Order: sequence, then structure tokens, then C-alpha cells
Amino acid sequence: MQTRFSISTHGQGLYEFTRDVTRWVAGQGDGLLTLFVRHTSCSLLIQENADPEVQSDLRAYFARLVPPTTDPSMAYLTHTYEGPDDMPAHIKAAMMPVSLSIPVSAGRPVLGTWQGIYLFEHRDARHTRTVAAHFLAD
Amino acid sequence: MQTRFSISTHGQGLYEFTRDVTRWVAGQGDGLLTLFVRHTSCSLLIQENADPEVQSDLRAYFARLVPPTTDPSMAYLTHTYEGPDDMPAHIKAAMMPVSLSIPVSAGRPVLGTWQGIYLFEHRDARHTRTVAAHFLAD
Amino acid sequence: MQTRFSISTHGQGLYEFTRDVTRWVAGQGDGLLTLFVRHTSCSLLIQENADPEVQSDLRAYFARLVPPTTDPSMAYLTHTYEGPDDMPAHIKAAMMPVSLSIPVSAGRPVLGTWQGIYLFEHRDARHTRTVAAHFLAD
Repeated sequence: MQTRFSISTHGQGLYEFTRDVTRWVAGQGDGLLTLFVRHTSCSLLIQENADPEVQSDLRAYFARLVPPTTDPSMAYLTHTYEGPDDMPAHIKAAMMPVSLSIPVSAGRPVLGTWQGIYLFEHRDARHTRTVAAHFLAD
Repeated sequence: MQTRFSISTHGQGLYEFTRDVTRWVAGQGDGLLTLFVRHTSCSLLIQENADPEVQSDLRAYFARLVPPTTDPSMAYLTHTYEGPDDMPAHIKAAMMPVSLSIPVSAGRPVLGTWQGIYLFEHRDARHTRTVAAHFLAD
Repeated sequence: MQTRFSISTHGQGLYEFTRDVTRWVAGQGDGLLTLFVRHTSCSLLIQENADPEVQSDLRAYFARLVPPTTDPSMAYLTHTYEGPDDMPAHIKAAMMPVSLSIPVSAGRPVLGTWQGIYLFEHRDARHTRTVAAHFLAD
């Protein structure tokens, strides 16, 4: 079976949607869950959902590793007409997952204790992001 | 069903093979498509296929993030006998996807409007790269 | 079918478990193999298994790209109470795969000649890591 999750974002950062996913596969038995984000300027991420500082630190690190194209260190980049956050968004989207595959056991994704499922938004403006989901029963 | 795509490369950069993939699953109904690259010095990438500058900028960014081992900043690396582009190629292959999973709906991968499927070649010399493809119907 | 692989680690670096995986799918015919690591401070990696220097170089590169939080360049990070290697571990876990999908043909994962399957441990202390595995026959 397939569905799509819609995630509203308002600036760069991590947006958790673990609950949407676990609800969707609840009662499905064993199988394989696939998530695929239909955009080239945001990512999917499995990360710690205990301390929110992990999420802000992740955002802070990648903002420094891939600064806006207005930063002098990024002056060699040419795809700049969609804004200073656009090409860095594509670069981060190359570095972090566009798809995730998670086994499902007795209707539950086999996530570890501290693992949450996130959309990592790399753009500054508001967006509505679509994640395609697929479940195949064993 | 399974197949293999063969992609000829002539130096570092992105090589699109979206059409090969969409042709292969055309008419297959719903299911799950998996791509897996059988090498450790190139990557698979989903990226924007509208403006070709995105592709050259991606190449330029990663060439600076992971410079050749002849660069003084990389002098601590030891695996250098296969050429100055070899160990950086392994590092980039660790950072970017070796496998991609894409749901298929009515014989079409559910790619977003601007998403293309690429092989990202990290070596300078010519290569013939093999991508294993797998499709499982729902 | 599903199983779990247990991998004992003693500090940062790559731990190969290709043989555990190939043994598990041996005799299973064609299908799709999925590996998923149930932690947020280590990664899964497909890398060269010929020259062990590739593995130590990978570790050395990522240790420099994402230094411990005791390094002055990382002073902006706030999630530090679990040790100087903890937040860098989360960052590396965002950059490298949490799941891998590998087609299986005649009971063999279609790995390339030089490809091995590794757990990349990002923490200094000893850990026992769990990798969930899933195989779906065609």
C-alpha cells in the first residue's frame, strides 16, 4: 500500500513525523516500509528524539559546513538566482538521505529506543513537503 | 524482476539515467524500485534536473570539501597509490547514497517534478559503472 | 524473513559484517535485502574491503570534518553532556546511511567485487550495536 505524508515547514530545521508513520503501518503485520521525499532541497533523517538540542546542533553544524552563497567562501557557486539558501539546500540534499527503508515487525517499524523520523528542511521560506510512503507485507 | 544499467563516465560529475529507469518500470503497476551501485568510488543521487548549473555546482562543492590527496590539507591520508582522486572518491562514496529506494505507482517512479536520477562519478579516468536495479510488485 | 545482527565495537572505526549477511541470505533465491541500524551514533557503510588503509583513512577524514566538541571550532554546539564524541557522532550519523537496500540474486547480495558491508562506529566507548535485517523474496 502507498500513501503520502504532507509536512508544513517554516524555515530550516528538523520536523518530526514519526507518529504519522507509525500510525499508518499499525496493524499491518510484518513487512518493509519505504519513505521517499519528492524534493531536492530537503532530506529525510533518522535522529535522536530525546534532547531537542541534538536537532538544533545538527542544523547549526550543516549551516556552517554549507554556508549561504552570500558567504565569500561560496563565491565559486553559480546557481544563485533562487536565493542564497538554494544551492546549499541542494548540496545538503545530496549529503543526507532522500529515501529510508525500515523493516516493520508486528505492525511496528523496528526503530531503536531513541530514533525518530524527521524531515530536514534546508530552505528558509515556508514550504509544504511531500513524503511518499510505501509498505510491502512479507 | 532485476536488471543492470551500464553507465559510461568520462571524469568526475553527474550522469543522468532517469529515462533508463522509467522505461524499465513502465507498465509494471505498483511496487518498489531499488537501485544499488556496485562500486565504492561513485554514488547514486536524486537531484534537480532543471538547471545544469546545479550539477556543476555539486561537483565543485564536493571537490573542495574532499580535495585530491595531493592537496596539503589531505597529507594525513595513506591510501594514495591508486591516484590522488582515489581516496577522495571513497570518502564521497561514504557521504552520498550507494542505494536508493523509490516507490512506483501505476508503472511510474513517484519522483517529484524536478527530480532526476544520477550517477555521481568521483574518479577522473573513464569508467563503465554498473547499477543493479530491482523491482518488486505490490 | 527478518533477523538482527549484533556487532560489538570498541572505539571509532569500521567493523565488517559482510559474512554474517551473505550467510543469512544464502539459499534464499532472488529478492531484496534491507539493513537498518537501530542507533543514532553509528552508520552503515558499503566500502572497499581490499586495502585496510581505506578504512583508517575514512575514519581519519570524518574525525577531522566533524571534530570532538572539545575542539574550539565546535564551541557553538550545545549537546555536550554525553561526552565530546557524542554530538559529532550524531552529525556523522546524519551524513552516512542508516539503511541500505541490496538486491539479492540466486541467494547472493549483488555486491561489487570490492564491496564489503560495514558498521561505522562513531563513539569511543565500547558498544553492542544492533542491525535489523529484512529479506523479501521476489
